[in-house]
Amino acid sequence: MLVQKYVDMLQGKSVIRTLSEFAAKRGKEIGYENVFDYSLGNPSVPVPQEFTKTCIELLTKEAPVKLHGYSQSLGIPDVRKKVAESLNRRFGMAYTADHIFMTSGAAGALSHAFRLVAEEGDEILTFAPFFPEYNPYVNLTGAVLKVVPPQTSDFQINIEAFEAMVGERTKAVLINTPNNPSGIVYSGKTLKKLAGILERKSKELGHRIYLISDEPYREILFAGVEATYVSKVYDYTISCYSFSKSLSLPGERIGYVAVNPACPESKTMIQMCGQISRGIGHNCPASLIQLAVARHLDKTSDLSVYETNAMLIYEELVKLGFTCVKPGGTFYIFPKALEEDAKIFCEKAMKYDLVMVPGDSFGCPGYFRMAYCIDTEKVERSLEAFRRFVKEEYGR
Amino acid sequence: MLVQKYVDMLQGKSVIRTLSEFAAKRGKEIGYENVFDYSLGNPSVPVPQEFTKTCIELLTKEAPVKLHGYSQSLGIPDVRKKVAESLNRRFGMAYTADHIFMTSGAAGALSHAFRLVAEEGDEILTFAPFFPEYNPYVNLTGAVLKVVPPQTSDFQINIEAFEAMVGERTKAVLINTPNNPSGIVYSGKTLKKLAGILERKSKELGHRIYLISDEPYREILFAGVEATYVSKVYDYTISCYSFSKSLSLPGERIGYVAVNPACPESKTMIQMCGQISRGIGHNCPASLIQLAVARHLDKTSDLSVYETNAMLIYEELVKLGFTCVKPGGTFYIFPKALEEDAKIFCEKAMKYDLVMVPGDSFGCPGYFRMAYCIDTEKVERSLEAFRRFVKEEYGR
Repeated sequence: MLVQKYVDMLQGKSVIRTLSEFAAKRGKEIGYENVFDYSLGNPSVPVPQEFTKTCIELLTKEAPVKLHGYSQSLGIPDVRKKVAESLNRRFGMAYTADHIFMTSGAAGALSHAFRLVAEEGDEILTFAPFFPEYNPYVNLTGAVLKVVPPQTSDFQINIEAFEAMVGERTKAVLINTPNNPSGIVYSGKTLKKLAGILERKSKELGHRIYLISDEPYREILFAGVEATYVSKVYDYTISCYSFSKSLSLPGERIGYVAVNPACPESKTMIQMCGQISRGIGHNCPASLIQLAVARHLDKTSDLSVYETNAMLIYEELVKLGFTCVKPGGTFYIFPKALEEDAKIFCEKAMKYDLVMVPGDSFGCPGYFRMAYCIDTEKVERSLEAFRRFVKEEYGR
Repeated sequence: MLVQKYVDMLQGKSVIRTLSEFAAKRGKEIGYENVFDYSLGNPSVPVPQEFTKTCIELLTKEAPVKLHGYSQSLGIPDVRKKVAESLNRRFGMAYTADHIFMTSGAAGALSHAFRLVAEEGDEILTFAPFFPEYNPYVNLTGAVLKVVPPQTSDFQINIEAFEAMVGERTKAVLINTPNNPSGIVYSGKTLKKLAGILERKSKELGHRIYLISDEPYREILFAGVEATYVSKVYDYTISCYSFSKSLSLPGERIGYVAVNPACPESKTMIQMCGQISRGIGHNCPASLIQLAVARHLDKTSDLSVYETNAMLIYEELVKLGFTCVKPGGTFYIFPKALEEDAKIFCEKAMKYDLVMVPGDSFGCPGYFRMAYCIDTEKVERSLEAFRRFVKEEYGR
């Protein structure tokens, strides 16, 4: 008499996991340095040394009973205040501590955001291509995730398709820019159009549609790309952040929810997060990590390797005749496969020790994702494998 | 259009919070050292120094990309293995890593345990007096928490009342021993009786009733008290643990779920926890904290102060004529108030700067809880206030 829905979920095996298991197995045969594993979005650069120093300083100088003591369920007050101030400084917002809720990473942030505005039977819309974990994240709340088809020409938003899909049960729209898997940054124009529709539809439907903005890649932006802080274009924005990528701390599970102060219920929403936590067993992030991150909010790891890798791969792919939108950030690129079925394409690539993820699970069949958070030296070697792969399999 | 159930929850203010706010306010007037704040269960002794050393060593010696990298959603494999080995060593169990799921504290552990076995409309039974957070923890899953009335003579389990309450929808029984708020340790006899009924009822009803054992106080046991490892008496036990109290790390939010290997579905249940996490946005605890705790599994903080305080308070209360069951562990004691309404009793006590929690919210009106995780010197001073309080208000 176990709860069947979770038993059933055990049957479906993640494509990404299957691929990374292949990469690990192959690595044992030929040395992992010879497997061009583009399957996983795990940061490859270290946290800044100052962060480590801060942790040690906290452990050395603070009284342990205080340092490791219970923190408030909304997060440590001074940490929330510092997060607000950093966002205000960087993006010209007007957050206070009362608009910030500290979370256990992005998953923790999103799980609160969804529950703030949607319940059983409600709909949350997102745009393909999208991070496949959004499916269980949303669907296990009782709400339903609906996916707007991709606009493959530039991976901006398919506005017409979106507008047609907004309905009575639509309570929120979920976006992710810079985007996993496309690497694309939504333009100011895209965001303004989106905000315009949200305003209009909210009025038409007589209920507010919230914008949930998942921003773990916000800090990984490439030269010449302008990014708009999403909450700037729409007052009813719930920003979900994680330090996993910007500070290379994915294992420490730290992030936050920030609700735009211009949203009339913003402070109530943060208080509600504390209640949602009680139901889902969420605890705010580890005290030590909260305190350490709060001292490095405006810093990032040295993220330049991701841009170097992006450009190397992009240029080579274009040379080889791939259709590919140039990434504006993240550590992903999402080219079109050289045959209709990207699953078959990626399977063939594995013969050349190239491990890449078919676009099907991102809601965009026919494309494939490369996560290039690996050493540049390895990227360079992989391009040779890529050339052989394309020549031998596709005669290019 | 926010989700109303969470908005409604904001109305109900926690009694404990109101009390600790009073304590903080009064502390500003007369110095917090003069407020006898028995309201909060926050450990008062430091984590062992070795733990701090381990953290610093990990930060100094491990490569940051590895140390802070993504950990598997079930927890770091070697940490799970070490937890299993420690439990086997200490309690003669046969756990492997496959029976352990690392969680963000006890709330994280319980939120998975409930979802493993109960869904919308199911019932989970617990025994008064009980930790009031069980209410939102269970009820927000869609299942319903039912409370068996207390057996105030010894705060063991009211077996007859329990048996009468087990029904078709009962999917699990939730116990907490050593108990918050009573400080009582369930005897081996109590646990065996409970297990017997669970076996019999499971057969009668044709479905398995699981035992969920919430054990954050497992390590705080007083001299002469024998404690049974709960999972020993019933195969279908899901043990939920937190290091908050044993290692004085409440802010670091680390614990685990351990499912008895004799339960035929035990390994499946741990795998299911990973799926449940995806729905509730749970992330396993911070990597750094997992790794550090794994090196100190058989150790605890110096917990002796809690027993010292327990005995001082217990003896004084008995002298003053209170009806009081002697605590066997934890840092709580749960005496009977000197008048019927414990809320009025506790209000009167506040005039003497004694801050204690009425038993009503623990499902046991007429009693009150004292959390004596404070310095012994302060306990001693508080007893003088207690004597004045009892004499002036009740003429004893």
